[in-house]
Amino acid sequence: MKITHIILALVSFATFDCTANNLLETEQQVDAMQAAANSSGSFAREFQRRKAQVDLAMAEKINVPLPADAGGGYTHEVHKRNYAMMRDAGRLYMITQDKKYANLVRDILFEYADMYPTLPLHPKQKEQSPGKLFWQSLNEAMWLVYSIQGYDSVKSALTQKERERIENGVFIPMATYLSDESPETFDKIHNHGTWAVAAVGMTGYVIDKPEWVEKSLYGLDKSGKGGFMRQLDELFSPEGYYNEGPYYQRFALLPFALFAKAIDVNDPDRNIFEYRDGILLKAITTTIELSYDGLFFGINDAIKDKGIDTMELVHGVTIAYNKTGEKGLLTIAKEQNQILLTGDGLEVANALDEGLAKPYPFVSKVYGDGIKGDEGALVVMRQNQAADHQTLVFKATSQGLGHGHFDKLNWLFFNDGEEVVYDYGAARFLNIEAKYGGHYLFENDAYAKQTIAHNTLIVDETTHFKGNTKVGNQRHPEVLFSEFDEQMQISSAIMKDAYDDVVFSRTQALVNSDEGHVFIIDILDVETEGKHQLDLPVHFNGQFIESSVAFTGKNKSQSALGEKNGYQYLWLQAQGKVTDNLAKVTWLNKNTFYTHSTVINSSNKQLDQELLMVRIGANDPNFNLIAKQALINRVNTAGNVQFLNMLEVHGEYNGSREYTIDSGSQLSSLENVSSQSNDDAITLIKATFETGVTYLLAIAKDATDKNAKTAFMYSDKEYVIQGNAQLFRL
Amino acid sequence: MKITHIILALVSFATFDCTANNLLETEQQVDAMQAAANSSGSFAREFQRRKAQVDLAMAEKINVPLPADAGGGYTHEVHKRNYAMMRDAGRLYMITQDKKYANLVRDILFEYADMYPTLPLHPKQKEQSPGKLFWQSLNEAMWLVYSIQGYDSVKSALTQKERERIENGVFIPMATYLSDESPETFDKIHNHGTWAVAAVGMTGYVIDKPEWVEKSLYGLDKSGKGGFMRQLDELFSPEGYYNEGPYYQRFALLPFALFAKAIDVNDPDRNIFEYRDGILLKAITTTIELSYDGLFFGINDAIKDKGIDTMELVHGVTIAYNKTGEKGLLTIAKEQNQILLTGDGLEVANALDEGLAKPYPFVSKVYGDGIKGDEGALVVMRQNQAADHQTLVFKATSQGLGHGHFDKLNWLFFNDGEEVVYDYGAARFLNIEAKYGGHYLFENDAYAKQTIAHNTLIVDETTHFKGNTKVGNQRHPEVLFSEFDEQMQISSAIMKDAYDDVVFSRTQALVNSDEGHVFIIDILDVETEGKHQLDLPVHFNGQFIESSVAFTGKNKSQSALGEKNGYQYLWLQAQGKVTDNLAKVTWLNKNTFYTHSTVINSSNKQLDQELLMVRIGANDPNFNLIAKQALINRVNTAGNVQFLNMLEVHGEYNGSREYTIDSGSQLSSLENVSSQSNDDAITLIKATFETGVTYLLAIAKDATDKNAKTAFMYSDKEYVIQGNAQLFRL
Repeated sequence: MKITHIILALVSFATFDCTANNLLETEQQVDAMQAAANSSGSFAREFQRRKAQVDLAMAEKINVPLPADAGGGYTHEVHKRNYAMMRDAGRLYMITQDKKYANLVRDILFEYADMYPTLPLHPKQKEQSPGKLFWQSLNEAMWLVYSIQGYDSVKSALTQKERERIENGVFIPMATYLSDESPETFDKIHNHGTWAVAAVGMTGYVIDKPEWVEKSLYGLDKSGKGGFMRQLDELFSPEGYYNEGPYYQRFALLPFALFAKAIDVNDPDRNIFEYRDGILLKAITTTIELSYDGLFFGINDAIKDKGIDTMELVHGVTIAYNKTGEKGLLTIAKEQNQILLTGDGLEVANALDEGLAKPYPFVSKVYGDGIKGDEGALVVMRQNQAADHQTLVFKATSQGLGHGHFDKLNWLFFNDGEEVVYDYGAARFLNIEAKYGGHYLFENDAYAKQTIAHNTLIVDETTHFKGNTKVGNQRHPEVLFSEFDEQMQISSAIMKDAYDDVVFSRTQALVNSDEGHVFIIDILDVETEGKHQLDLPVHFNGQFIESSVAFTGKNKSQSALGEKNGYQYLWLQAQGKVTDNLAKVTWLNKNTFYTHSTVINSSNKQLDQELLMVRIGANDPNFNLIAKQALINRVNTAGNVQFLNMLEVHGEYNGSREYTIDSGSQLSSLENVSSQSNDDAITLIKATFETGVTYLLAIAKDATDKNAKTAFMYSDKEYVIQGNAQLFRL
Repeated sequence: MKITHIILALVSFATFDCTANNLLETEQQVDAMQAAANSSGSFAREFQRRKAQVDLAMAEKINVPLPADAGGGYTHEVHKRNYAMMRDAGRLYMITQDKKYANLVRDILFEYADMYPTLPLHPKQKEQSPGKLFWQSLNEAMWLVYSIQGYDSVKSALTQKERERIENGVFIPMATYLSDESPETFDKIHNHGTWAVAAVGMTGYVIDKPEWVEKSLYGLDKSGKGGFMRQLDELFSPEGYYNEGPYYQRFALLPFALFAKAIDVNDPDRNIFEYRDGILLKAITTTIELSYDGLFFGINDAIKDKGIDTMELVHGVTIAYNKTGEKGLLTIAKEQNQILLTGDGLEVANALDEGLAKPYPFVSKVYGDGIKGDEGALVVMRQNQAADHQTLVFKATSQGLGHGHFDKLNWLFFNDGEEVVYDYGAARFLNIEAKYGGHYLFENDAYAKQTIAHNTLIVDETTHFKGNTKVGNQRHPEVLFSEFDEQMQISSAIMKDAYDDVVFSRTQALVNSDEGHVFIIDILDVETEGKHQLDLPVHFNGQFIESSVAFTGKNKSQSALGEKNGYQYLWLQAQGKVTDNLAKVTWLNKNTFYTHSTVINSSNKQLDQELLMVRIGANDPNFNLIAKQALINRVNTAGNVQFLNMLEVHGEYNGSREYTIDSGSQLSSLENVSSQSNDDAITLIKATFETGVTYLLAIAKDATDKNAKTAFMYSDKEYVIQGNAQLFRL
């Protein structure tokens, strides 16, 4: 009975303050874990599973080889396995108090302690920030983050002499190497720096070096120019967005979360989780929120099978639940299907066992980019919060450093569990030796980062910022407005300096109308004085069904679309002059039809407008790229041009029950009727469907806030826009 | 309490015999349905759901339009909806005894009775076997099969006069039209004949015309030359395989199952389910068994999203469970997730509610083709019966009539829920108007049926039987042997007359070795005297990883592979001379790597051997085909050639946990070492893996049965083959 009470108490008072003898949990949490391991429930099951694994591994001889191999090689993998094993064995000792686990950690650490002082720099050292155990100091910091946890758990079982042997042999020299001897990494405001300060800071707590904690928090000179606090200030936007995007945000999360947890447990007065308006928790929840159906949005350099079940986010969610008690986090934990053997992990396990999980509150949100959140933003518009919900991602972020792509005002669209309008992500097969050793492929720079690999404007077959990352990092779009309501979610942004003489702005609205129509209106305005070729691709997943454009197919042979900037990787499969007003393409993805329609508006009547169908695969003799497809609307003209687009979500294909509904586009006309209003500052888009329903999207560019009211006349009738935009049914 | 007892009794004595007043169930079953509808459980839930649907539809006016449209058109769909509604309303009346449902069926039938006698042939009549209500008599028979069920359920509520009006107005003239007036369809041994005899026979039971039942069973002249019994004799092989393959087997199943059920209920002494050694039940279970992960094998003209949850198989499984009580069928029923409101449906619902389902016993099996089962076979080899189990389908069947493909000795392979080596299936987008009205596309004949669209031998770019179905129907492969055990499943067949001067035979073995290696050995022997170009494609799903062959990629342009027989639809993406002994291609599908390796053995040392990579899409300006890929091993030579192939299943890619195991092929050599044995009739294949493990596959072609023992010497050691084949570890 008493045990149950303790557990319940812990769940209820999750933020209970108590300076600890342990790195990551209070004494009460340790007591609860010991009790829980012997009961039933998911914590006990995970404990048994992990115990069986470690017991099995213990049968093998301890193996601490001299460092020899680079990332992925033998010694690299062995040292990684060792640190995970020490962490796990430490956990088992903490829970069972069975000395054999403490001895295992001790004996492994003895080997490292005997070896480490003699190690030169790693034979395969990376040029920048080499390690000793590993080829790069990043891995060395990871080793320390894990191993110090194992040591922390067992140190009470060791003699003074044993402790000295270990601390003097490996922890002190390694922490010194990572801090004082590697100032350029340790003081760097970058995720590699976070790993270093977390490793050194956590070690400081465990072996009682408060000085190291101070350096980790405020930099080697303790001025605050470097260190964890400044990283918290600068690596995330106020909304918790990490500049490189969710794939790298996830990667960076682990040292942030673990070190913060250690600070919280050992220095509760620092109120680390409240710092900068709760930036750490925001970083965790934002990582969760930059996903669809469990997978991260594949923007920038992202490998697209990564999602919310990654180990980094398991730690993040577990720690965040302890701090907030937010029951939506439990749904994420459930999908992660991985319980941690920590005090916080027990709280998550108990809450899951009690069925406390509630749906995670995914909402539409503007994730500002940059330190102040004013260097563009990732705008996420979500509708229909069921399993098949729609998500429109409008990427108006800044460049995102070295892992950023040249894709200003790009977009992605998800529906019914599918990425319908896709981002290629990174060209990389992680850990697959045959594909350039699992590193980023040559085609990552040459294709995947180029603008043509995205769903945004390319002028004269030239990549944004001419493909120069340094230039890209200095410039960013400006978000003009974002408004979300039940029927329509809309956002608008402008990019002024991706090209020398072209400014473009884009407004995207996701509509779930009261009449049951689901569509996106996408207005891309190109301002220029010169004559240009303008390409606007839509990369879609699904089977082509039909087009309103008569194609000339490439029947007997086909050629690459271009020669550079990514165009050389695309086969031109078919092309057609656009003579009709609407250039439509319909495709089928799973059980839903999608039609993309484009109207090009220009004062120039001599438009040379074409629709192209392309597939990835030219100039790719080793099949390094995935043979996906896109449509491209192309126009050659001078002066301003508006691409007015709609993506309709329509119909149903049911192969099992043998029926098909509304396989054809319902859009009968799409027009810019702004000139028919009495107000030059108002944009009016009229869309008519075959059902007879007509919508008028009215945008007041100059409205100042959500309560501003702008009246205008159209067809002899007065309309009032509240805020920046409003959808009317005519 | 009494009600519960009745239900339990019905479950226990599912084959209880009782001549009925109802078409499809005994009085006891009706009583049980009435009781169950008011209780809880899945039958009651389905009853409520269906009742709500019909109640909603009843609010609308009855609509029986004059026939005007062809398949898919308005009047076609309305008449289809009407018959489904009558069947459902009849079921609701049977269960609730609420007169409003009987009245609904009556009133709809009145409209048909008033209209039908005046109808000429349908204005959009199909040339062969036109209907009156529908463009083809097939749909007319379907109308009758459903409507007569509705009428049967409600006729007890109608007056004599009402019955006469309906029977004289529509049932008698329609049944007469479908039988006496359409002898060519009614007496045809074909699934269209089955629909006709089922419709007329079921009507005979309901309106008491024993003569019609006799004609339905034995043909219009009652000689047995036509009719249901002869269809049972000839449309299925002894193993219950339907000549056109599972996609059409599923379609044909419904009239077979329903009519048989009606016979069983009304004429139990005919023992229809015991007929021909239980052929009806075999037809049902075989349909189930010709599937992987819920979807039918996509051989011949198959639309690949069809699977075991189709309505036809819901009826089949429900009826089969009533007859057999086989609890494996309940697992299929559970996956179908659809309860029928019939007596048999209630039994399935109760059994599911009681948790009686057991795994369906999928096993390796030879499904003989042809009336006697000796015109080739579909050989299904299954291993590891978990969710991720492997299935090798060796298609040594005969042609399969008009829906058959020219793919003698083709194969497919499934693993871990994926179709790894695929069959394209049919080129058709069912019910999608934009794709040739949802009919078979031109490309179905021009590409999908051609040999090059399959994984088997093509000689001189010419399709088997020169693409002549009539010739194909007269010739078939011969299965030489099949043996299944824990470690190896193997089958062998020969095709003598697909080409004028080429005979080819193929042996395929699926191995799950005791040492943990999983692979297929595939030996294709080509016997010819002439000089030929021989192509052996492997159509694979997944991302290309690497090849042992140095390709010349098609960098700036690529061309169609050929000009006819399906070759014109393939882009030649890359090609390379095979200089090394083993031509390997590795790809990744989901989380597993696959490597296909080929060695070409020939007495001719001047082999001109190439590996080609192709992708579907040339000459396809409307994107009617799906842009999938294949590798092709090609050799130009004279005389006999052996393609000795291996497909390895290896390694694991884990993107979430960021590890990759064994991404490379482990096969280091693959040799035909038959000449090193002392017995010319023995084939010896030696495969050596990099782990050091070497296997010797020994095949005794002339062994007579599974107990035959054949001894041979190899490397100075004696080995004994039991049966036709044996795998040794050297």
